[in-house]
Amino acid sequence: MELLLLSNGKATECPGLLGWARDRVQSLLARKQVKRILLIPYAVIRSDWDARANELGESLGVEAVSIHQFDDPVDAINRADAIFISGGNTWRLNQLLHEYGLIVPIQRAVRERGVPYVGWSAGCNVATPSIRTTNDMPVCNAAVLPALGLFPQQINPHYLDASISGHMGETRDERLAEFCAINPSEHVVALREASLLQISGETIEYWSARGEGFKIFKHGETPQEFMDAAPLAALTPFTPRV
Amino acid sequence: MELLLLSNGKATECPGLLGWARDRVQSLLARKQVKRILLIPYAVIRSDWDARANELGESLGVEAVSIHQFDDPVDAINRADAIFISGGNTWRLNQLLHEYGLIVPIQRAVRERGVPYVGWSAGCNVATPSIRTTNDMPVCNAAVLPALGLFPQQINPHYLDASISGHMGETRDERLAEFCAINPSEHVVALREASLLQISGETIEYWSARGEGFKIFKHGETPQEFMDAAPLAALTPFTPRV
Repeated sequence: MELLLLSNGKATECPGLLGWARDRVQSLLARKQVKRILLIPYAVIRSDWDARANELGESLGVEAVSIHQFDDPVDAINRADAIFISGGNTWRLNQLLHEYGLIVPIQRAVRERGVPYVGWSAGCNVATPSIRTTNDMPVCNAAVLPALGLFPQQINPHYLDASISGHMGETRDERLAEFCAINPSEHVVALREASLLQISGETIEYWSARGEGFKIFKHGETPQEFMDAAPLAALTPFTPRV
Repeated sequence: MELLLLSNGKATECPGLLGWARDRVQSLLARKQVKRILLIPYAVIRSDWDARANELGESLGVEAVSIHQFDDPVDAINRADAIFISGGNTWRLNQLLHEYGLIVPIQRAVRERGVPYVGWSAGCNVATPSIRTTNDMPVCNAAVLPALGLFPQQINPHYLDASISGHMGETRDERLAEFCAINPSEHVVALREASLLQISGETIEYWSARGEGFKIFKHGETPQEFMDAAPLAALTPFTPRV
């Protein structure tokens, strides 16, 4: 399996979509000899799908085509060199993945054929077992929680522990504590902006463009910050690369 | 109908649960001769339910009992003088309202018997047609969107237009714009901290303890800020009190 799970698509450090992680993405594409990226941009409104693919292709210097350009989206997955899922609204994205019947085809492509999967923000959320740790509003009329489950733990992308003065709503830490209280046997991996997890075969690596750590949340435990993937050894089948 | 829909339960201005709106809540309770408040605290974990009721009762100087103290929650609704729904996780709250079969009993109590309904944060979300504009994470394994529909438009509580420096996730305005793009025929009423809507019979009033306005979001329109309920005339069956 080749997974790149990124907290976010754009960061102030480096212009362009995935600019902050461009070296890592391009290196993966070169290693897997990817000629063309298949982009699933369902998290944004339809009128933006082609623009998102063009933006991605220009930023990475590789052809990128939105899946809606193919007559049969399942066939497009089956023929894909690389599957990229971009950010936006996680609910809309997950709903359309299910409606178009893409869950199992993507799982097979990634798990059985080793097709690289690169997902950021909403595209990172749907790579986990469910979208229960999304930050997005459930704007759709349907609510579907199970997702691709390529990564075996919930991830919370765009993680931040700052809060806005005067705001009385829950902080992110409080929301994640609620998740853990309701689901005490589960862990949540919280990824800050400009950070990522890379799974390559049997190994897992953590990297942050800002030199920051990630956190792990579990009910009854104080969340801790980590600078490398070592603590993921107990939570995933992957071997940490530290 | 007597509804008090509040953005939040606690604010820095005034100590105690609902302290910032205490005069208004107490005045409503006096007018309706409420002897005892029935609290639905399902939005927080079960071990906190009694504590939340005690905190509410002490803050308002009125007896408050959590609904789980009654053998039959539907019967408790049917006998209630006043129904209060507190904040926490909107998903958990709405799931339990449906599981315990309380949706129709609450609708009848409020609409037909004129029982006062006071809801803040999650308790404000569930008073609208659905929880599609909650800020909370869908931490539960079930995802139920339809809610009480006592108020005919979606509300976004804890509304804020500030954002945290360096955060690349969506702003609240972007999330609400996503809702409107997916649901172009609907409006969202965005309530800032320490602000409320009060429906009393045929009239509706807006009030903010901070002297701030509320916003209305609609697809294709620039969100505008309003200081009184006048613009709600076109969006609700109520007559604005300005």
